[in-house]
Parts: sequence; C-alpha cells; structure tokens
Amino acid sequence: MTRVVQKFGGSSVADADSIKRVAKRVLATKQAGHDVCVVISAMGDTTDELMDLALQVSPIPKPRELDMLLTTGERQSAALLAMALADLGAEARSYTGSQAGVITTGKHGDARIIDITPGRVTSALDEGSIVIVAGFQGVSQDTKDITTLGRGASDTTAVALAAALGADHCEIYTDVDGIFTADPRICPAARQVPEISYEEMMEMAASGAKVLHLRCVEYARRENVRVHVRSSFSDRSGTWVKDLNDINPLTDKDGNPMEQAIISGVAHDRGEAKITIVGVPDQVGVAARIFDEIASAGINIDMIVQNQSRVSTSRTDISFTLPKTEGRNAMQRLNDIKERIGFEELLFDDQIGKVSIVGVGMKSHPGVTAKFFRALADADVNLDMISTSEIRISVVVNAEAVDRAVRAAHTAFGLDADGEAVVYAGTGR
Amino acid sequence: MTRVVQKFGGSSVADADSIKRVAKRVLATKQAGHDVCVVISAMGDTTDELMDLALQVSPIPKPRELDMLLTTGERQSAALLAMALADLGAEARSYTGSQAGVITTGKHGDARIIDITPGRVTSALDEGSIVIVAGFQGVSQDTKDITTLGRGASDTTAVALAAALGADHCEIYTDVDGIFTADPRICPAARQVPEISYEEMMEMAASGAKVLHLRCVEYARRENVRVHVRSSFSDRSGTWVKDLNDINPLTDKDGNPMEQAIISGVAHDRGEAKITIVGVPDQVGVAARIFDEIASAGINIDMIVQNQSRVSTSRTDISFTLPKTEGRNAMQRLNDIKERIGFEELLFDDQIGKVSIVGVGMKSHPGVTAKFFRALADADVNLDMISTSEIRISVVVNAEAVDRAVRAAHTAFGLDADGEAVVYAGTGR
Repeated sequence: MTRVVQKFGGSSVADADSIKRVAKRVLATKQAGHDVCVVISAMGDTTDELMDLALQVSPIPKPRELDMLLTTGERQSAALLAMALADLGAEARSYTGSQAGVITTGKHGDARIIDITPGRVTSALDEGSIVIVAGFQGVSQDTKDITTLGRGASDTTAVALAAALGADHCEIYTDVDGIFTADPRICPAARQVPEISYEEMMEMAASGAKVLHLRCVEYARRENVRVHVRSSFSDRSGTWVKDLNDINPLTDKDGNPMEQAIISGVAHDRGEAKITIVGVPDQVGVAARIFDEIASAGINIDMIVQNQSRVSTSRTDISFTLPKTEGRNAMQRLNDIKERIGFEELLFDDQIGKVSIVGVGMKSHPGVTAKFFRALADADVNLDMISTSEIRISVVVNAEAVDRAVRAAHTAFGLDADGEAVVYAGTGR
Repeated sequence: MTRVVQKFGGSSVADADSIKRVAKRVLATKQAGHDVCVVISAMGDTTDELMDLALQVSPIPKPRELDMLLTTGERQSAALLAMALADLGAEARSYTGSQAGVITTGKHGDARIIDITPGRVTSALDEGSIVIVAGFQGVSQDTKDITTLGRGASDTTAVALAAALGADHCEIYTDVDGIFTADPRICPAARQVPEISYEEMMEMAASGAKVLHLRCVEYARRENVRVHVRSSFSDRSGTWVKDLNDINPLTDKDGNPMEQAIISGVAHDRGEAKITIVGVPDQVGVAARIFDEIASAGINIDMIVQNQSRVSTSRTDISFTLPKTEGRNAMQRLNDIKERIGFEELLFDDQIGKVSIVGVGMKSHPGVTAKFFRALADADVNLDMISTSEIRISVVVNAEAVDRAVRAAHTAFGLDADGEAVVYAGTGR
C-alpha cells in the first residue's frame, strides 16, 4: 500500500456538486488500495470575498488577523469534503494546517514551512481514514499563531506533506491537462509534456508558466517528491515533474532511442513592467544605492540591464523589470532619491512582455541563442532586453509581439504538434 | 484595574459597519481602564448559510465536520473585530476557542465546557492587549478535535471565560435593553428589571424567556459570575443577573425600605406541543416504559400530567409537552410501541402555549397560585396542564389565550409600569 497526496484547487471545489465530484475521485484512489491525504484550497472565490470583507472593515488589515480570517476558507472546504466522503461510506477526517502539524515562520501572509510534524495525519491514515488537510496555512513556530503561506501556496502544502508522509508521489489537480510546451491559448500547436525535470519546471514557473508555483517546485526538488500535475475533469495522465535522472529517454515506436528536443517549452509573462533610469552618474556604488532603495521597499526585480556609458557625459542608463503591481511604488521611491542620486529622468513602460525558452538540452547544444534570435527576427520581433541562465534564455519584447514571439520560438525548436520529426518528451537529455 | 468580559451576538456584528461600532464600544471600555476580553458570535446569518452549504453537500452532515465548518463563522468575526480595533490604534488579538483554552467534552454539536486554560488570553491581557475569542467553540479534551457548544452558546463561552479570568463581571450585549417583566411585544406595560437572581433567571429562561440561555445562567450561578445583560445600541444600564444575597433591597425615593414584589416576571413559550396517550393500562411500570422510549430517542419532555384512572376500565390518560420540533419523532416512536403498551389512542396538539410566573417571593407568600388562577379565570383563560416549582408556576393554555394570560398575570401581580404602587426591582425578597 502506497501513500498518495492529492491537492485540489479552488476551481475544483467551487460548489457543492464539485465537492461531491472530488469526493468520488478521492474515494476511487482509496479503493485502489492507496492511503490518501488530500490538501484542499478554499471554494471558488471565497478567499477574494473574505479579503473584500476585510477591506470593508480596515483599509490595511492587520496581517495576523487577515491570516485568521482567510484560513477559514480552506477549513470550510476541508470539512465539506469530509462530509461528502462520509456520505459515500468512507471514513474521512479534516484537519486545519495547525492540526496537521504544518509549522511555519511567523511572517503573516507569506510564511515559510519550517517543519511538518504529521503525527495526527499519520495516525488517522494508519487507522484507515482518508485525511483532508486545509491548504495554504500553518501555525507559527514561535507564537503559535495561525499563518498563511501566501496565495496559491496549497500546492506547497501538498508537496511538503507528501515529503513528510513519505508519499509515493503528490498529485496536483488543476483545470488543465498538465504542463504544455507553450500556452495553448496563444500557441495552438502546443503539446502536453509527459515528463519534465524540476529544474526546467522551476525556470518555466519563474518565467510566467502559471500551472505550478515556483516555491512548490523548489520544495519538491529539495525533498525529491515526484509531482503529477493533472486535470480534475478527466482521468488522463498529466505531466510528471521529477528528477532529471529519472526521466525516461525517448524512444520511437520500435523502442529505438531518438534524438531529444533541445527546448522543453516556451513560457511568457505579461505581468511585468520596465523602468528605465536615464542619465545615472557612472560612479562606483550608484547602482547599489538605487537597488538598495528598491529592495528596502520589498519590491522584487527581475531583469536588469545597464547600457554602455555615454563617454561624453560619464552617464549611463539602467533598465530593470518588476511586477506591474509594484510599478507605482517603485517609481515613487526612485523619484524620492532623484536629487541624491543625481539621475536625469525616469521612464515607465508596462506595454512589455517577456518570452523565455527553457530546456536542459541547451547546455550541450551550441547555437541555441542564435537560433532563438533568428526566429524572433524572422517574425519581426524587436528585442528590448535579454537575460539568460544555464537552461533558459529570456527576452523582453513589445506587448503586441508576445504571441508572435511564442509561436515563432515554438516552431523554430520543433515543438509544434504537427511539426518536425523530433517528438518532445519533456527534457532535452 | 478590573477585568471585564464582553459578549456580542450575531446581530451586533452583522456587517462591516456594525463591527466598527462594536470596536468603538470595546475600546471605550479599555480606555476606561479595564482589561477587556471580548467573546464574539458569527456575523448575522453566517451560521445558517454554512449549515445550508453543509446540507447541499450531505443530507446528514457528520457532526465532527459540521463543527469544523460552523466554527469558521466566529473565527471570521473575531479576526474582523481585531482588525477594526487595530485601525483605532488599539492592540488586539483574536483567538479561536481552542487557542483560548476552551476544553470541552467530545460531543460534537453539543459539547460541554470541562475546563478553561486561558494561558494565552491572560498573557495577552497582561501585555495590555484587547483579547477577542471566537465564541460557541472549543477543543475536545480527548481527541483535540474542534467542537461546538450548541447554538447560542457564545453566552456560555463568555461566562466561562469570565470565571476563568477572574473577571469583575460579564457583559452580554444584545438587541434589547435587558430582562423585562414580560415580553414587551405582547405586554406593553412590561418594564425592564434592573436586577434578578440566578435562580429566577434560570426559571425564566427555562420557561421561554429568550434573552439568556439556560446553560449560561447555570454556569454563572455555579461560578458566581455577575452577568450584565444590556443593549449594544445604547449606553443604558441593563439587567444584572447576580446572587440573591447581593441584590439591593428596594427603597422609595427617600431611602425607606419598600414592600417587594412577589413575582419577578411572566414568561411564555409557544415552542411546545402536547401529546396525549389515551387509555393507558393502569399498571405498574407502564409509564416508565413509555418515557424510556421517548428518552432513548433523545427527546426532552417538559410537563407530564397523568389523569385519574377511570375505575370502570382500569385505564388512564397521560399527557406531556415537548418541543414542537420533536413532535413527529415522538409520535412515530410511541406509535411503534402501541401494541406492546396496549394504549388506545395518540392525540397531538401543537396549538398550545405555556405561561409561567417566576419569583422567589412566592416562597413566603401563600395564595400566589390562587391569585394567578383567579386572574386567568377572569381573563377567560382555560387551564389545560399545571406544573410548579418552588419559585415558578406554569400553566398550559390554548395558543390563542397566551397573550391574554400573560397580560392578566402581569397586571394581577402589580408588575404593570403604570399599575399598582409596588415598584418592581427584580426579586421578591
């Protein structure tokens, strides 16, 4: 008998009927002979509605109390799923994050899991019960207050529980069939990926792929938990996220090894804006002062580009990207230090998009960058900023060019469903 | 500095504006120099809405899971009140029943408080914080599961916390000005009672007065907690429920002792029905078998009357009252044992009402019963059943006669606001 952790998101439990459907699926897994621990999100828009209520009461709700408030959403859906399972004749028990032993840091609204002490969960599983844990929440190690892990962090709860319970794997149920080579809404030739490595999945998530949260994949890699991302509306196998060494080599239909794809997928992100600081004095420590100011405001920046100094003036331009939602805050902060730094002008552009290609295959294949840029040029896409990692190349382009750029890259690297002969299998090994 | 526990019900926190109003009142108490612990109910109809949701998922929701679900309502209002207080500049922390140390039996949906271990609450109070505790809930001693104390039991939470914290008194905020000599909606001459003894309040609550729950008053008496029932919509003093020996003797405006009222109040209850078992064999043990059957169905009965045996047949009639909501269940149970018991017929009547007069003064005043019955007769009210305790006389009458009977008793015992010279002061000492 193996243990499985299953996580269902808010859209999977939007109403009473959805909850009953989830109950049937959970029971089927139990009846197939597995110990089942379910992690569940709040129903549909519950979290947003509670947040609205909080804002009616208080313009800046106290984080400790916001956590007390918001965590009730997952507790409700956990209790309702347990009731639905009881009606099907199953023994099921719901637990809060705190009861399930999810110990976190004390940073309300954005706590990190420190440890899982799943004594009550293992006891219940050992007694043959299905266990349902309210996701997204824990209890702080120091003050024993209720904490939340940040929006969407039920995935992380599930992976962390899977690790703590020694589960065979963790299933993340969502409203799509798994991970795709690109967003099918803008790239109809995109295909589902049967397997992908942790590293590639992390780069995809960091580059805008929405299916799995970055922190969840990091946790899965650290604890070596195999994650199966699949649809709650079908029984099809989805995408397995696993260690690179466990990914099966591609074979053709006769079992012969095949050439692997260089690129695993194309991700895009429309959520960023670009700030350009014009005429920055080209002196030691100036850039540090600028980014200290941004960091102290708690703003995460993504790409940074510094143009070559204009020799005539000893001044330079610095551009960086950041989440659109942080744009106003960052502009204000920078404006406040304009005199002190002595730069000339601030420019703000939120009509941009980021397009990234990700694949471990690029490590062993020279010329990937050239091929990518050639494809973009042929599609009439101008590059504004460029950044790379060992297994990723990202470019910032005009917002209107994002779709074109994704499709061009997807085709150029042979990912199209009816395209070149190489069949994609999730990694470029 | 004294400690005060304040309890606000669902109608006092129905929306964001109400919560802000409650926050101001709580803060005023804190600023007056008191340590304040607030016990709060769920907002408005939240509990009913959660129950509806549960019934959509499951026809008979599992009690353990229902408790997990329903307790989220109080947690939400507790968190929201803490946010509102923080906005007013106050330090405030919300706690679940479990966090506040409310230890209960394991009977989900109707648990009893075993103990309060208020360590976190006292620490927070000692640090100068206002403490807000989610009412109606606790944690079971044995299984550490979340429990509820039964509907309306936030009053009991408040009194129990007041006892555990050594509070000076417990304030119960409601939508009326306190306890009245009768329901003002049917008896316009009813007056607010400034003080009433625990014993009288218990009889009033058991006789249909809705303001305080019986279990709450029992708890207050056992722990000798003074309870102040008052309106959340005004600053007027309400009704103090306290030990009989602490109640101030009545004086006239010159400070001279006055004659006390015999009766504290008139209560009524339209929530009961009457079952009559006709032609019961007049043999030893038959009544016991009947009421064993009723008790085993978990049905609480109130009054029982057995008519004199009809000598010709050696048969008797037994009537009893019970909550209307239990009527169908009880009739079914009794019908099932008709053959075994050998009675002739079952009659059901839900067009009845119970009218009770309550007062410790009746202990020392003979003729109270006669005066009560004379007043009812003069008002053309027929008596169907009668039951008495040391400080209460109850009669069952036709439903249509309830209002008339309440008014007649109220007038006869000098309770009318513009009536006889005796001014009522809450007890008949």
